[in-house]
Amino acid sequence: MERLKVAFIGAGSAIWSSTIVIDLLINEGLRERGLDIWLMDISDSRLDIIYGFAKRYVEEMKANARVYRTKDRREAIKDADFVINSAMAGGHGYYERMREVSEQYGYYRGINSVEWNMVSDYHTIWGYYQLKLVLDVSRDIEELAPDAWFINVANPVFELSTLIPRKTKVKYIGLCHGHLGFLKAVEVLGIRLAEEKLDEKVNALCAAKDPRGYAAVAKAVDPRELKVEMTGFNHVIWLSKFRYMGEDAYRYFDEWVEKNAEEYWRIWSEHVTSPFDIDLSPAAVNMYKVYGLYPVGDTVRGGTWKYHWDLKTKQRWYGPLGGPDSEIGWAMYLAHLRIRLEELSRAVMDQSTPLVKRYPPRPSGESLVEIVEAIANDNPKESYTLRPPAEGAPPIPVPIQVNVPNKGALPGVPDDVAVEMPVRVDGKGVHRKVLTPLPRKVMSCVILPRMMRMEWALTAFLEGGRDLLVEWLMIDPRTKSTSQAEEAVDAILKLPENDEMAKHFR
Amino acid sequence: MERLKVAFIGAGSAIWSSTIVIDLLINEGLRERGLDIWLMDISDSRLDIIYGFAKRYVEEMKANARVYRTKDRREAIKDADFVINSAMAGGHGYYERMREVSEQYGYYRGINSVEWNMVSDYHTIWGYYQLKLVLDVSRDIEELAPDAWFINVANPVFELSTLIPRKTKVKYIGLCHGHLGFLKAVEVLGIRLAEEKLDEKVNALCAAKDPRGYAAVAKAVDPRELKVEMTGFNHVIWLSKFRYMGEDAYRYFDEWVEKNAEEYWRIWSEHVTSPFDIDLSPAAVNMYKVYGLYPVGDTVRGGTWKYHWDLKTKQRWYGPLGGPDSEIGWAMYLAHLRIRLEELSRAVMDQSTPLVKRYPPRPSGESLVEIVEAIANDNPKESYTLRPPAEGAPPIPVPIQVNVPNKGALPGVPDDVAVEMPVRVDGKGVHRKVLTPLPRKVMSCVILPRMMRMEWALTAFLEGGRDLLVEWLMIDPRTKSTSQAEEAVDAILKLPENDEMAKHFR
Repeated sequence: MERLKVAFIGAGSAIWSSTIVIDLLINEGLRERGLDIWLMDISDSRLDIIYGFAKRYVEEMKANARVYRTKDRREAIKDADFVINSAMAGGHGYYERMREVSEQYGYYRGINSVEWNMVSDYHTIWGYYQLKLVLDVSRDIEELAPDAWFINVANPVFELSTLIPRKTKVKYIGLCHGHLGFLKAVEVLGIRLAEEKLDEKVNALCAAKDPRGYAAVAKAVDPRELKVEMTGFNHVIWLSKFRYMGEDAYRYFDEWVEKNAEEYWRIWSEHVTSPFDIDLSPAAVNMYKVYGLYPVGDTVRGGTWKYHWDLKTKQRWYGPLGGPDSEIGWAMYLAHLRIRLEELSRAVMDQSTPLVKRYPPRPSGESLVEIVEAIANDNPKESYTLRPPAEGAPPIPVPIQVNVPNKGALPGVPDDVAVEMPVRVDGKGVHRKVLTPLPRKVMSCVILPRMMRMEWALTAFLEGGRDLLVEWLMIDPRTKSTSQAEEAVDAILKLPENDEMAKHFR
Repeated sequence: MERLKVAFIGAGSAIWSSTIVIDLLINEGLRERGLDIWLMDISDSRLDIIYGFAKRYVEEMKANARVYRTKDRREAIKDADFVINSAMAGGHGYYERMREVSEQYGYYRGINSVEWNMVSDYHTIWGYYQLKLVLDVSRDIEELAPDAWFINVANPVFELSTLIPRKTKVKYIGLCHGHLGFLKAVEVLGIRLAEEKLDEKVNALCAAKDPRGYAAVAKAVDPRELKVEMTGFNHVIWLSKFRYMGEDAYRYFDEWVEKNAEEYWRIWSEHVTSPFDIDLSPAAVNMYKVYGLYPVGDTVRGGTWKYHWDLKTKQRWYGPLGGPDSEIGWAMYLAHLRIRLEELSRAVMDQSTPLVKRYPPRPSGESLVEIVEAIANDNPKESYTLRPPAEGAPPIPVPIQVNVPNKGALPGVPDDVAVEMPVRVDGKGVHRKVLTPLPRKVMSCVILPRMMRMEWALTAFLEGGRDLLVEWLMIDPRTKSTSQAEEAVDAILKLPENDEMAKHFR
């Protein structure tokens, strides 16, 4: 068997890349193949960190792997078997500047934030450079590694997973880990089962993130008896199937909403430390009530402006930090990224402590390397397992979930629009399943509006013209007048970084 | 051959019904068949007028037709060959009251007016009774006249033409005459050709509605050399093909925009008498510039709030009357309807003057009876002709244009969504053609947003629940807060006429 060449584009997303490097190096199925890991980034300093990390980790693990660094994207891609993209053109600072300018014209959180995409780094209408970058990467792959699999984890996954297969011939998979949010529905199931079957009241413990709560939940739920299905668009997926021991498990969720939610929120709001801890927030429950299904993972961050008018509104629905996409939550997240990068950097420089001590060789829970292995070794897979949540508990199976053109899998969505769906993966790639249709309310009031914004952003990217940007704001509740929209668009296009973008949208 | 039974539901839409009755009575192809015309309405007084009219017209024309009146819908429908519906549940006054309440809560022109549906009597989200009425009519037809053709001209044609074929088995055709708006693009062609080929400058004459202008246009354009195609959704159709003598005729439109439009607007705005005279307004030209195709007929009335923020904005784009959907234009229209009904009523009562003198036996230009004849006599037809615009000019062919489920005709639109399209009609019904795809901008920024609002309105109608009404306003630029939306919805549902509707949306 030939060695596998795996290229990381935007490897300087170092926290994430380090996680995947560990997953690659510890994967049993890949050990025999031998790995050539190519790390590419445009930033020398970030490349230093991840290259230093990977190099040392390989040595410490005595792994059958070689590590290369380059700033030349084409060199990294040439003859690769897998190209993994996590690059974000411009970096966070650039988008924060566009957000700031937007807010001067009355567009809280930026002109990019719209219904069902309030995620602060999911760049669509103002994502010109990002869409262009990933399209360029894809074209390099078409030319230099036509047989490679392109696994893109960079946002906007929905837009990119629609755009790239439409415009190129690369073998494409879009990935996100948001679907792991379904575990919070399982936690609810556990809270109810612990009370019903074991007579243990653990709702308050779980709300306080007390390990005893999780242990009770793990004892109450046998994960092998779970059947879940999550579908929709990336960041807009819904728990369309939730069964336990052969029965509809939504009844437990209904009971929790009725009997436990208020107590949970009272305690949770006093214990919340992460702005991302919103899977069981009032917003999640309200979305469930309005649309009829549990909104999984990042889906909760979306919704209409009803949940997002201002910080106060966000705090009402998402707790004291206002969720990750409030001014509080996002500042915390950006600081957290910097802290973790500094930690990684220091760990790499500190030769006295083995990296494996600080970053133990344990599977991260990400599906990416599971998918790489399934394809590389033609090892059919529909799910993988997470480490058990508590000592002695069985591991939790998680569906392999990807973003690929729908091609008939989800009823009511066009074939060439990317759907996030559970699939089987093997040497031939991705195999779609027959999916549970989403309810009419979700289709009409969520899927269609989100699809419209995606098509709009792609049209603006592909065709240019200032009108499409102004019109984007004409259907925005923050817009009070045409001139407000025009001035916001003009101010954004006048940023020095946006010279090229301004030409495109002239 | 058996006599044809034609039932008019909502026959009390008397102006319109009288027009169609004339078309029926003068149609050569139907004369031999013999007609049983059933006029049904719930209003005695309106039924008096149209029954009196039809009865006298038949006598004056010595037509082979019998006229019946009834308030029993099922009696009218039973064993009919054609059922024609023009009923609007509640009448104009009811919707004006909902508009008034909406405006008290900041929803100018009512919560029903949204992007690409600003038409004041195209009732979608608040059209509960109207959607229910037409669905009930369809179910009566399924039961009592399963072989009948159901020709619906009542708005909302787009929503109804999607709903009825989804929910019933009736042979359905949705009709509108908005596509006749393409004649205004032909006028532009004529203005340019008159100047280019005949050296006659008639732009100012046409803007002033001077018959000499139209005569010159008729002389300059040979309508047999025209090729047009209009597609999209009802009230949102675009001139996707516009060819003259084998070449792309959009170049004439471009030249007119560049050389004549300013002059046209200056004169037009001083001569405009009808709020509907907006086909060549600044709004139409702006839509053409933004979306790349000429917006046909009622399409111009749509667009985003950019054209509709307030009366002043509407006047800027649609001229001094602000278009038909401004407070000025709509009041004029409603008064105009009352005036014409009074005229008709007086004409029917005035036995001294023959009706044929006041309402001459000439084809109205509506396609409805052309379609009835094509189906009844199995007489294949793709177009019909309008009377020549000037003495000696050739008649103008107009495509037969219907609203039916797409079934693959227009690329990018789901099969079960109604598309307005040119078709061939014969005894077997409607035959679709291969349609020119609409440009990406129109698809992303017009067709998708409009389709979303249609699906939303149908979901609200079919499933009920107050949330769907409130959420409808959450993506509306007029909404400033959640409570504003909630209060508007509650106030509308509290109207005494909305008792039943309020139960549905509880």
